[in-house]
Amino acid sequence: MNRFFERVEELARERDSLLCVGLDSDVARIPRTCLLKDNPQLWFNQQIIEATKDLVCAYKINLAFYESLGPRGMETLAKTRALIPSEVPVIADAKRGDIGNTARHYARAVFDVFGFDAVTVNPYMGYDSLTPFLEYQDKGVFVLCLTSNPGAKDFQLPEELYLSVAEKCREWNEKSGNIGLVVGAMYPEQISAIRQRFPEGWFLVPGIGAQGGDIRAVLQAGRRGTDKGGLIFNVSRSIIFASQESDFAQRAREQAEHFLALIRAAK
Amino acid sequence: MNRFFERVEELARERDSLLCVGLDSDVARIPRTCLLKDNPQLWFNQQIIEATKDLVCAYKINLAFYESLGPRGMETLAKTRALIPSEVPVIADAKRGDIGNTARHYARAVFDVFGFDAVTVNPYMGYDSLTPFLEYQDKGVFVLCLTSNPGAKDFQLPEELYLSVAEKCREWNEKSGNIGLVVGAMYPEQISAIRQRFPEGWFLVPGIGAQGGDIRAVLQAGRRGTDKGGLIFNVSRSIIFASQESDFAQRAREQAEHFLALIRAAK
Repeated sequence: MNRFFERVEELARERDSLLCVGLDSDVARIPRTCLLKDNPQLWFNQQIIEATKDLVCAYKINLAFYESLGPRGMETLAKTRALIPSEVPVIADAKRGDIGNTARHYARAVFDVFGFDAVTVNPYMGYDSLTPFLEYQDKGVFVLCLTSNPGAKDFQLPEELYLSVAEKCREWNEKSGNIGLVVGAMYPEQISAIRQRFPEGWFLVPGIGAQGGDIRAVLQAGRRGTDKGGLIFNVSRSIIFASQESDFAQRAREQAEHFLALIRAAK
Repeated sequence: MNRFFERVEELARERDSLLCVGLDSDVARIPRTCLLKDNPQLWFNQQIIEATKDLVCAYKINLAFYESLGPRGMETLAKTRALIPSEVPVIADAKRGDIGNTARHYARAVFDVFGFDAVTVNPYMGYDSLTPFLEYQDKGVFVLCLTSNPGAKDFQLPEELYLSVAEKCREWNEKSGNIGLVVGAMYPEQISAIRQRFPEGWFLVPGIGAQGGDIRAVLQAGRRGTDKGGLIFNVSRSIIFASQESDFAQRAREQAEHFLALIRAAK
């Protein structure tokens, strides 16, 4: 098995946790108490990581919240990545996609420069836009399939594009062995159809936090037949912004425990 | 009309140029003579810009070639942007796409932090992933429609997804007025169908350089009925990497003049 998915699976089993915490650390939303620090975003991340690092099977970091602060934000991205304990794999939520030669540079950025263990990518430009990522055999590559936002209704759901993506990814995965899918929690019925097309794949599932997706329904529809696993639930805002006060890290931990309990209860 | 497209149109008319030069300045491919400089990528860009700045109606900078150098690369991106004369609009080739709140941060990065005049975005996640970009009314937003790479055959061409994208973009453009499309030069027949769906839009056309697309066929199929315009031809590698010797800037200018002559002759 691919090294990234192997690590997630080991940690998920060891901790009985399918929870991924998303460090979508929008500086406009972090508690005021952080603003006194030299690098508020980094300090905030450090507190959140310290408070949750034993509860998760992975972290996910969305690059947008760092890119919007320019070069200094990219420094913070690198430093945040380095703060995460080595036993916990980290996903770069980048949603990149470009022609082969260019995609190679994006792959280099997330894997070689910033040292992520997995990445999210956009399938619109097809196979040759994904291969530079897939060539990193130890890394995981989550392809957007059915997303949790309203815009999924514009192109993904009509003509069942999301099923074509799932089918192609299954086919491509026979060669590379490191493809997963991003599947939003809002659509249990569709998740079941996606699982049929890609029985062995890992699904990264956003949408159970602020967006209110039903964990039990997702688990029933989406878990693998073989081992009842293959799902990673990501929660970002509902955990990291649980409080605007100085107790924010403790409250983040409580929220992480809350979601972890919901996931365990639903299994 | 939207300020970005107005500026492109003015410059295109004034210079009789539909040429955009793409600064895909892969450090592994820039001439050795640049490597003696403190910041080879920036110095290379400066020479290319100096040599071509009076020939173009826009520049395009692909972010991947800067992101792959980490925070320092992002500094070079900002400095490169700043080197371009104020009369020439600059497109960030970023191909971003994420849910609304996150996309807002990408929009802030390209428009507010790095000061670009337009951006390329990916439509897979639908309308709410584009609105944060569209809300910048003075900026241009090129949505990927039919791309010039082999992978276009995986999802864009089957079920005519590219036509759905063109139709939706036309509809959305009635509100925002700042949408253009990315349409690869390899498919004149499809370009004609896209033009029918989006009669008034600007098309950013890659694929006439290294990839060998037919300029005359693209012009016949894709120009607007109203003013015979609405097309921007981007050429990257064939111009900026025209020579590996110390004459690279002069050779880049010659290649830019060559493509400009081809475009003029085909009109």
